[in-house]
Amino acid sequence: MKLIQAIVVTATAVISLGGAMLSWAADESYDSTSVFGGNLPSGYRDWKLISVAHEEGKLNDIRAILGNDIAVKAYREGKLPFPDGAIIARIAWSYVPSEENNRAFGRAQSFVAGTPTNVQFMVKNSHDYASTGGWGYTQFSGGKSTHVDVQACYGCHVPVKDRDFLFTRYSP
Amino acid sequence: MKLIQAIVVTATAVISLGGAMLSWAADESYDSTSVFGGNLPSGYRDWKLISVAHEEGKLNDIRAILGNDIAVKAYREGKLPFPDGAIIARIAWSYVPSEENNRAFGRAQSFVAGTPTNVQFMVKNSHDYASTGGWGYTQFSGGKSTHVDVQACYGCHVPVKDRDFLFTRYSP
Repeated sequence: MKLIQAIVVTATAVISLGGAMLSWAADESYDSTSVFGGNLPSGYRDWKLISVAHEEGKLNDIRAILGNDIAVKAYREGKLPFPDGAIIARIAWSYVPSEENNRAFGRAQSFVAGTPTNVQFMVKNSHDYASTGGWGYTQFSGGKSTHVDVQACYGCHVPVKDRDFLFTRYSP
Repeated sequence: MKLIQAIVVTATAVISLGGAMLSWAADESYDSTSVFGGNLPSGYRDWKLISVAHEEGKLNDIRAILGNDIAVKAYREGKLPFPDGAIIARIAWSYVPSEENNRAFGRAQSFVAGTPTNVQFMVKNSHDYASTGGWGYTQFSGGKSTHVDVQACYGCHVPVKDRDFLFTRYSP
């Protein structure tokens, strides 16, 4: 089991994303799985809800975005950029129809969370993750740390740089 | 503005739901809007997440189900029936496609929470709500208490009586 998978970016990378050319330079080693020492952050399942979403396609999941107290406070106060220490968790489950609910509603309309897929985290540390917009990215599946391409994560989030790289908006 | 809307059930009611005949007798007054004195329960938006769901059709919403500490503890421990004091909140928002997310994914697949629709609560009090399975039902829209037909709520939840009238299962 590879607990440590290092991604070393030694040169300027140029990535094309949705037609936009993004470039950055980084010369530091980046260990995507050491963000929490390979462990899920304690108590993340108790964190407050930021919002929910559904992804079709290959993902075909329904998801909740939770935040630790620092993150939720920043969201609620509209504070940008998010302070160091903010952590955002995206939990996802398979997207399944609920026959039980459909019977109650009298029509096929209800979709619920099935088995967990994976959990992803964004961790704000403007020093440690300077090369990826101040956010570290990590992922767990079945409670175990799994490899993520943090530069790809970062690249995808660049279009929402003005919101400190956060796609999710707070849902009141 | 009608803050108090009383539902008085004075006779045996027989309701047909999904082909099943359910009957119960109740002779007490039931004030659906007084469950929290007409106010949203303090701090409910900070409660822990139980699960998420999506409803198509007229509802066309995406929703999160939160619980107070008593409710979440009962869910996690598989405790049935739920103890008095348990409160479950169902928050819903309009279900909207996210063009921003779709651009990042490179295809139309993403749906997020839009504007809030309403918030519904189930409150466990086996004495006060004996006539509706031990649960009181209430609803808020725009922060204000709105009328619900608690007997209809109860009737819909009867098919999951074995799970203490709770449709939602806990999502780990």
